[in-house]
Amino acid sequence: MSRDKETLWRKEGKAEVDQMVLEFTVGDDVFWDQRLVPFDCRASIAHVRMLATIDLLTPEEAAALESCLDEIVALEADGKFKVTADHEDCHTALELYLTEKLGALGKKVHVGRSRNDQVLTALRLYELAELDRLEDLVGRLSSSLEEACGRNGEIGLPGYTHMQPAMPSSVGLWLGCFRAALEDDLILLDAARRLINQNPLGTAAGFGVPVFELDRKMTAVDLGFARVQANPIYAQHSRGKFEGVVLHVASQIMYDLNRLASDLMLFTMREMAFVVLPEALCTGSSIMPQKRNPDVLELIRAKYHTVLGDETTIRHLSTNLISGYNRDVQLTKGPLMRGLDATARSLAMMARIVTDMEIDAERCRQAMGEELYATERAYRLVREGVPFRDAYRRVAEEARKK
Amino acid sequence: MSRDKETLWRKEGKAEVDQMVLEFTVGDDVFWDQRLVPFDCRASIAHVRMLATIDLLTPEEAAALESCLDEIVALEADGKFKVTADHEDCHTALELYLTEKLGALGKKVHVGRSRNDQVLTALRLYELAELDRLEDLVGRLSSSLEEACGRNGEIGLPGYTHMQPAMPSSVGLWLGCFRAALEDDLILLDAARRLINQNPLGTAAGFGVPVFELDRKMTAVDLGFARVQANPIYAQHSRGKFEGVVLHVASQIMYDLNRLASDLMLFTMREMAFVVLPEALCTGSSIMPQKRNPDVLELIRAKYHTVLGDETTIRHLSTNLISGYNRDVQLTKGPLMRGLDATARSLAMMARIVTDMEIDAERCRQAMGEELYATERAYRLVREGVPFRDAYRRVAEEARKK
Amino acid sequence: MSRDKETLWRKEGKAEVDQMVLEFTVGDDVFWDQRLVPFDCRASIAHVRMLATIDLLTPEEAAALESCLDEIVALEADGKFKVTADHEDCHTALELYLTEKLGALGKKVHVGRSRNDQVLTALRLYELAELDRLEDLVGRLSSSLEEACGRNGEIGLPGYTHMQPAMPSSVGLWLGCFRAALEDDLILLDAARRLINQNPLGTAAGFGVPVFELDRKMTAVDLGFARVQANPIYAQHSRGKFEGVVLHVASQIMYDLNRLASDLMLFTMREMAFVVLPEALCTGSSIMPQKRNPDVLELIRAKYHTVLGDETTIRHLSTNLISGYNRDVQLTKGPLMRGLDATARSLAMMARIVTDMEIDAERCRQAMGEELYATERAYRLVREGVPFRDAYRRVAEEARKK
Amino acid sequence: MSRDKETLWRKEGKAEVDQMVLEFTVGDDVFWDQRLVPFDCRASIAHVRMLATIDLLTPEEAAALESCLDEIVALEADGKFKVTADHEDCHTALELYLTEKLGALGKKVHVGRSRNDQVLTALRLYELAELDRLEDLVGRLSSSLEEACGRNGEIGLPGYTHMQPAMPSSVGLWLGCFRAALEDDLILLDAARRLINQNPLGTAAGFGVPVFELDRKMTAVDLGFARVQANPIYAQHSRGKFEGVVLHVASQIMYDLNRLASDLMLFTMREMAFVVLPEALCTGSSIMPQKRNPDVLELIRAKYHTVLGDETTIRHLSTNLISGYNRDVQLTKGPLMRGLDATARSLAMMARIVTDMEIDAERCRQAMGEELYATERAYRLVREGVPFRDAYRRVAEEARKK
Repeated sequence: MSRDKETLWRKEGKAEVDQMVLEFTVGDDVFWDQRLVPFDCRASIAHVRMLATIDLLTPEEAAALESCLDEIVALEADGKFKVTADHEDCHTALELYLTEKLGALGKKVHVGRSRNDQVLTALRLYELAELDRLEDLVGRLSSSLEEACGRNGEIGLPGYTHMQPAMPSSVGLWLGCFRAALEDDLILLDAARRLINQNPLGTAAGFGVPVFELDRKMTAVDLGFARVQANPIYAQHSRGKFEGVVLHVASQIMYDLNRLASDLMLFTMREMAFVVLPEALCTGSSIMPQKRNPDVLELIRAKYHTVLGDETTIRHLSTNLISGYNRDVQLTKGPLMRGLDATARSLAMMARIVTDMEIDAERCRQAMGEELYATERAYRLVREGVPFRDAYRRVAEEARKK
Repeated sequence: MSRDKETLWRKEGKAEVDQMVLEFTVGDDVFWDQRLVPFDCRASIAHVRMLATIDLLTPEEAAALESCLDEIVALEADGKFKVTADHEDCHTALELYLTEKLGALGKKVHVGRSRNDQVLTALRLYELAELDRLEDLVGRLSSSLEEACGRNGEIGLPGYTHMQPAMPSSVGLWLGCFRAALEDDLILLDAARRLINQNPLGTAAGFGVPVFELDRKMTAVDLGFARVQANPIYAQHSRGKFEGVVLHVASQIMYDLNRLASDLMLFTMREMAFVVLPEALCTGSSIMPQKRNPDVLELIRAKYHTVLGDETTIRHLSTNLISGYNRDVQLTKGPLMRGLDATARSLAMMARIVTDMEIDAERCRQAMGEELYATERAYRLVREGVPFRDAYRRVAEEARKK
Repeated sequence: MSRDKETLWRKEGKAEVDQMVLEFTVGDDVFWDQRLVPFDCRASIAHVRMLATIDLLTPEEAAALESCLDEIVALEADGKFKVTADHEDCHTALELYLTEKLGALGKKVHVGRSRNDQVLTALRLYELAELDRLEDLVGRLSSSLEEACGRNGEIGLPGYTHMQPAMPSSVGLWLGCFRAALEDDLILLDAARRLINQNPLGTAAGFGVPVFELDRKMTAVDLGFARVQANPIYAQHSRGKFEGVVLHVASQIMYDLNRLASDLMLFTMREMAFVVLPEALCTGSSIMPQKRNPDVLELIRAKYHTVLGDETTIRHLSTNLISGYNRDVQLTKGPLMRGLDATARSLAMMARIVTDMEIDAERCRQAMGEELYATERAYRLVREGVPFRDAYRRVAEEARKK
Repeated sequence: MSRDKETLWRKEGKAEVDQMVLEFTVGDDVFWDQRLVPFDCRASIAHVRMLATIDLLTPEEAAALESCLDEIVALEADGKFKVTADHEDCHTALELYLTEKLGALGKKVHVGRSRNDQVLTALRLYELAELDRLEDLVGRLSSSLEEACGRNGEIGLPGYTHMQPAMPSSVGLWLGCFRAALEDDLILLDAARRLINQNPLGTAAGFGVPVFELDRKMTAVDLGFARVQANPIYAQHSRGKFEGVVLHVASQIMYDLNRLASDLMLFTMREMAFVVLPEALCTGSSIMPQKRNPDVLELIRAKYHTVLGDETTIRHLSTNLISGYNRDVQLTKGPLMRGLDATARSLAMMARIVTDMEIDAERCRQAMGEELYATERAYRLVREGVPFRDAYRRVAEEARKK
């Protein structure tokens, strides 16, 4: 435990914090916190500017702190600002850096906030950035699908129900399903953004700030939040709740990818071969020399389950607990970031697959068996005046005879 | 197996469907389908009207079918139209009734649709009605909370972090948290409604309808859908996906109730007694004569887990499957309806609790210990010019001495 | 609310229990409790006999109560003893019946126990009976698999990895996998039985019984429990915990069925057709006259997810709670019984499918393509002295040329 | 991509494996594989020895390979053998090292096995070691609980039901609950060990090995497995299944810790203060100078949810898939290792807490209110001849008057 940190917020004279306790409480938080650093700096800058307007900092002090925070952002981008287990979290890492660089001035930055609203703010800025990233990647996959439809949309494919040939379908109809699904996912994404787009900064430890009148609207505007999250207890309550909403968007997107990957796994089977994956997307076997395996598809399919698992874990972590901050929610960071990463990577990988895969038109044509047209035959009878159920029976009887 | 049904869609000459198979496949679907009857009738009426406009039915035929469907709605409302295991599902029950009443005409109703889009349509209408019900109940609970704040909002309460007294809070701040959360849930509810508010009728078995040109916009307007779900494979793909979205709204609402119930469980403990539940809301013990138990709170708390469990089950049911209808999704009905029921009942129960509970102002006052004001004392020092971290240390030292 | 029950354990003079509260707290418990009646009677008889040995009942009183409890068992078996919402649960239903029949004597039966240990005991007896049922059904399916291997085990089948043809397999190897898996499931089943096979009767509300010395070993022997669950708080703690263990066995069995069903779904596809389901096990479509759908397989596949969902719900219900009875655990009944039912039915259905399915030896033979023998070719080179990696490369090169 | 690896099992002349594909398929596997290295070496040594007995290696070759594998174990223990993304997994890392050191001989090691059975074997050895570790830690916590009971077991505590004071309990009764629970967990642990204690080595890619007759009993004995996993398809099927069984043991242990932590969170609340955590186990707040927070308890409580989440993820990953290896199961590694780590750390932390916590006997004594003895008063009346329900009513009436 560094002496410097001791001087920040540890109780004077307190027994050294136990190494076992430190390791247990920090866990892998340091790892996840690394990517919060730029967001925490951005939020800290907004906080500092606001403190200057309510005379808790002079303009000069605010400028010095802001410049120092900019420095951290630049260092971090170069991989030179590392959150370590000794820091415990990125918030303390920041404050320590400021205190080392600016002395007594660094000790002033934390007035009017707590690590509780600090982490909420950094996380929310991170989540908003991630939602933007997902929206972009959804758009790119959607374009890949559109282009693939442009190339091969007219090619006929068997449509399956119960995994049995059912009716005529086409490449355009099939891939169009996923474009429509992704478009609808953007409705959920938009709602998630609307929900979380509120400023938690200034709610401190969940019960607001006594003595001083913070200008929470100012920091909201500065950070680009659409509104202020007024109730401080709700700010705490939304930890876990909002992460669940964000990952729900991710898992809904992954659901679409899971199903598309499942289709592709079937369609690239030797026995169907409607779709061919280029060799660059396939992997080999260590024992079977002939193999060309679609591992990328299997992993996309599987990642739905890890993302949904991450969502579900978050949804359980903070239940049956009383209001106000509970340390339990710290453990939402890992699942959140893991889940968002897996989703972003899967979207990019799938866009690549859709772009590079080939449709084997000849194999598709051969698969368009007569049985797919049974409903059409029945409907033609209906058009000639036969009641539907009678037409159905007549065609069924013919089918049985074959 | 009734002969009548045999004549509907079973294959002519087919071996009697096995009783064991019938029981296994029908499962408890009959139970859940009962509440789809009115929605299925409404959708069937829209279908029939549309068929008349494309000359697959005469106006007289359409009128006869519509009147017969109205009859079913009225019977069902009186508990006189029962879906049974022999029917297999509500769709066959409807068609059988029409055929019994109208003979050959009844056999015409199913042209241009499949049970696949029929159940999608009925479910979606049911879900939209349920979302309306939830919105209404959320509004009612929100009003109860508002009134409770009006009565007791000013009363001080300890604010807890890590379940330890932290800072001063109040009844208004505490209950206001849940009002804000419920208000935000409506954003999710609204998105769910926007997402699912599209007409699946006319997508048939998931690959559209050959031969005939259905007017899907007409049925969309008739049924009040905001748009047509154009891609028929997507209509199937959305089964399970949309149910997951609807239950996500429910489980987010339940999350708020879970936390409010958890607060109330603590606050009604003998040792706190900030809140008193009226005896009418308590239950007794069969062995301990003195007990007054808050079972209603425990069950609301617990129902979050069953609703989230229902949501999660739905999210897993249709994964790793190829596109097109898979019977697996039938099993989404139970969790969907169970989850929505539990949510609606919990909202109503919680509104009652919030309205009837009493705040013990005296107990609250006694609990406002000096330690809650430590941050305030530090901030007063800051106002006098002491840097925050130094002020913090000074107050911490005083606290340790006590 | 019946007057009689009022006299059992409601507080004298207490306000009538609210109808809304009653409905909310009872929920669907009455439905699930019905099947606990025989187990609750059995446990009550053991309790009564024990009370007689410690002089809290005379031998005559005990005999009268036992005979009356036998009466309930017989009535219930005939569908004539119904637990209703007014009873609230099966325990009160029993006590009411005894009091009605035997007057003051009925009021004596509840001494030395609480509904808390009463339900624990009834549930545990039910669970032990269910584990026996599962064991029997696992044995039956295993026999079906053995017979199917006897008939067709020698027939060759392609073995797949990554859903691509990999190496030669056979019907015997394939079905043998599931026999081995089910055999191993019995290890888990046995552990579950060992774990839960302990007598909770006499732990009362979770803190034992004051004043009287119950003979808990006697009731353990009477009920066939292997040991006494000595710690009364642990008896409460094990509610939820044990149910999770029991359903874990069920979900592991269902996992095997899920995978077998998935294989069968692929192998009955038109494009493979290694396996043919008899028509009696197939269902039709309401729109496509030609369809023969393997719904039974899809539903077995899907039920894994509902059973696992039920297990997971139970595992979450009682978390983050303090020790001692919490009403939350009441909600474990539904998932537990649902999950066990689904497992038992799926096992029976799958045994039927395995017995009735046919293997199409000709289709299997045709599918045994040359590529399946690539590893064998490489190994023959190894036998001739070529290092494995070089042999691998040589065969891979040949495969690429084709 | 290193040239060396290319020469191992990549197809000759194949397009360079795509960097994007490589990163996507490797994922964080490299990270998890690091800890499999020693187990993979141990299994490889057994494989090599066996190859020598069936004349696929000379005794000298086997000795050279074994010595080289020992070298890797030693290097890894010193942190000098690193699995990197280029290696893709630990298996290729091993083979590459052998080939670099031993040239052509290294190319011989992989005959008669596949990475599929190689990873199964390494994982299973790892899991058996982890089960031993958990058993040891469970024993240690159990001892801590026993010692704590020895020190303070006689001190009375209120027993709660529905979070309301119910009956007299004691420290011994309370902590004894968890000792009993942990003892029962060992039944599950033992079953898990029995289940997974079977040798998968020699099942190759899931369909056994052609041409050569491996001696699978020999490797089983060498590796300490209790039996051979005979069916090779079952070896693949058990991936995911067995991991689920292992994590089920972990999550059942964590359930006990979750409930003990929840009790401790309540009992250390200012309002109860039955238990005092030493300062070394508490952490502070960055804003509230007076705080002493039990973060270690909150994190143990929370880790139940992550471990159960990890278990659930594993249980879903490989469902609805056909038999034979699917790459999806690769993603079980992370949850498995994460879950086992969290459990081991929580057990160690809790043992420390139980050892260091203090019971405040005076606070406990004050909390033993008269209401806890209501059942006792009723039972005394029963002993005097009053029927239980009448005694209950009399005491209830008295309680109401207070």
